[in-house]
Amino acid sequence: MLTSWEHRFANRTEGMSGSAIRELLKFSSLPDVISFGGGLPAPDVFPIQKFIEASDTVLKEMGDRALQYGTTEGYQPLRELIAQNAIEYGIPISSDNVLITSGSQQALDLLGKIFINRGDRVLTESPTYLGAIQAWNAYGAKYVTIASDDNGMQTQHLEELIDTHVKFMYVLPNFQNPTGVTLSRERRKQLVEVANRYGVPIIEDDPYGQLRYEGEHLPPVVVMDDELRSNEVPVYRGNVIYTSTFSKILAPGLRLAWVIAPEEVIEKLVQVKQGADLHTSTFTQYIAYEVIREPSWMKNHIQMIREVYRERRDVMLKALEEFMPDGTRWAHPKGGLFLWVSLPKGYDTNKIFPKAIEQKVAYVPGTAFHPNGGGENTMRLNFSYSKPEIIYEGIQRLANVIKQNL
Amino acid sequence: MLTSWEHRFANRTEGMSGSAIRELLKFSSLPDVISFGGGLPAPDVFPIQKFIEASDTVLKEMGDRALQYGTTEGYQPLRELIAQNAIEYGIPISSDNVLITSGSQQALDLLGKIFINRGDRVLTESPTYLGAIQAWNAYGAKYVTIASDDNGMQTQHLEELIDTHVKFMYVLPNFQNPTGVTLSRERRKQLVEVANRYGVPIIEDDPYGQLRYEGEHLPPVVVMDDELRSNEVPVYRGNVIYTSTFSKILAPGLRLAWVIAPEEVIEKLVQVKQGADLHTSTFTQYIAYEVIREPSWMKNHIQMIREVYRERRDVMLKALEEFMPDGTRWAHPKGGLFLWVSLPKGYDTNKIFPKAIEQKVAYVPGTAFHPNGGGENTMRLNFSYSKPEIIYEGIQRLANVIKQNL
Repeated sequence: MLTSWEHRFANRTEGMSGSAIRELLKFSSLPDVISFGGGLPAPDVFPIQKFIEASDTVLKEMGDRALQYGTTEGYQPLRELIAQNAIEYGIPISSDNVLITSGSQQALDLLGKIFINRGDRVLTESPTYLGAIQAWNAYGAKYVTIASDDNGMQTQHLEELIDTHVKFMYVLPNFQNPTGVTLSRERRKQLVEVANRYGVPIIEDDPYGQLRYEGEHLPPVVVMDDELRSNEVPVYRGNVIYTSTFSKILAPGLRLAWVIAPEEVIEKLVQVKQGADLHTSTFTQYIAYEVIREPSWMKNHIQMIREVYRERRDVMLKALEEFMPDGTRWAHPKGGLFLWVSLPKGYDTNKIFPKAIEQKVAYVPGTAFHPNGGGENTMRLNFSYSKPEIIYEGIQRLANVIKQNL
Repeated sequence: MLTSWEHRFANRTEGMSGSAIRELLKFSSLPDVISFGGGLPAPDVFPIQKFIEASDTVLKEMGDRALQYGTTEGYQPLRELIAQNAIEYGIPISSDNVLITSGSQQALDLLGKIFINRGDRVLTESPTYLGAIQAWNAYGAKYVTIASDDNGMQTQHLEELIDTHVKFMYVLPNFQNPTGVTLSRERRKQLVEVANRYGVPIIEDDPYGQLRYEGEHLPPVVVMDDELRSNEVPVYRGNVIYTSTFSKILAPGLRLAWVIAPEEVIEKLVQVKQGADLHTSTFTQYIAYEVIREPSWMKNHIQMIREVYRERRDVMLKALEEFMPDGTRWAHPKGGLFLWVSLPKGYDTNKIFPKAIEQKVAYVPGTAFHPNGGGENTMRLNFSYSKPEIIYEGIQRLANVIKQNL
């Protein structure tokens, strides 16, 4: 009796997609295709020399520990460095509030695992980050979605949508993936107020916060949440779970990210992480710590990334202006990696995709980012990966494809 | 309204333990404690110089790719190398049958995610690997357990326990964790025959297969399963999902392991892995590949590990013989990292544990490895981590604690 695998798989795997978009993105890596599809950092900004030195130091001076098993919570000096940076941001935490994860995708997965019962409702922006939907679908999440505009999530509609049973709200306040928009200060305030009124936690996903190319830095949602409380509590006991990553400011190949949360939440995350992968690579944690431990180096490094990406964003905006047909609209992102393009209503970016691939240019169709449908006329473009002249050429190709299909 | 976290957590996190054993193991790392508790490789066997050279090569020659995002399936040359080794073992696969995971703990977690619906029954040895129980508890598994003896799982009782609804069987055939015993050739055959008769898949967990210190290598269960079939099928379409790891033959800090399975299973695992952590660190995969790519180096390296661990096992066996009181029994493991000790019935190794810590020696109480209870009079001892003279001293301490409590 040969096993029939399909009927053995658990119910949660039914209708698991991810594959549609994965299939699309495979085309992106064909030769000569200019890909605006992924969310890849520019390899040009990887500090390779610094990594060579750090690897050498770590292996020579502490190789026996860097290659050994580590604690589930993460490498203690790295947790402390993250806590120190958070304190400078205005979040009153200690390293006990920090968990190192295997990329922020794992943070999203573990958060789904500790919070979501099958059928639980989660409130997200629509469009929102595809990886969050993928992670939480596996736990049977349902989505209550809220639209966004040029100032981010339309928090004025929050009270129409929320109730005390919503498991959590998920927001990417800075240079959102996929839209590139930033949640305004007023809306951040409104968000934390509503969340506190209903006792609904917020997951704040902030991979790009440091990559601002213009305008004034806005306080993270977690800081605004903390400001709601009296200052007599010396540790963070708030309502926000914050996550960020080294993928965009250092290198994604390390798979290193972190969660900041009240200790009760960290403890629960540690329990499930132990069952999920024991702990994140000690080797990559030691090396990352060695690379970033000098604040002045890190500051200069991030400044360099900002300059590279600002130029690429500007080139993309200029090319869109120059080549795109009338009726096409796009946002002006103040940071991050992405730019969101809308075609006139009635056009379908999924249908146009194969034609774009024929013309050797790729993007992600906007429907992928809508948990409950919608976005047929939209697409996400990445501007961090390709060099400026390639971006210019790619937008010209894309505009031609669109013109031929308008 | 301040969030009460406890009542927000998902049902699956209720009664999540792991913490009891975690708390115990924290004592193991106190200064001067001789720990037989963990499952740590000896840092003495880490090939640090080789890692220094590999890191340098990888960063200088392909740093832009090694630090970038990678595919969920894993680094292709590493998958091919693993497939090549598997073919030499007699498993007819290609790299499409290989998934790289973030440690074998992740392999167990992802397998739970794709197979286990709440309440599903899984058949395991008892005692069995603690990490598997932790991973599968999160998906609501129930356990049907089968006892083992000096020849491993008592497969003669399989048919009394199995039915077609059992989701899968889990077996560690070589130098089992925690008992150190090896499943005999006859029982391997019986296992695959019963599994095929009932159409119940087998998960074969083989972290220590290469670490045999005496006796003849036995074919993996996956090979014996394949032998049941006609050879006209050129790819593996069998009933066994095999997993192994680089943690014990290279370094656990890399968090690198792999799964070998029919393509349908690999595809499903890839879908859930994408939601769980996108992919395993490209950086550690590139470096591991660079370290192990010369078969002759790897062969010598594993031979060196075998010699180091064989000596440690022999010292532990000798010390047990010399110091342990009458009525204490232990197995003679032919490989791996662990040795299983049984005190006379009625004694409780959980109760003795604090006294052992007072005498500065640690172990893992056997109850931790029993999914459905039992093993109160047993303990697991690790012999790979400590140097021989430390092992000798530690067993003397442990024997004294036991004598005082017999």
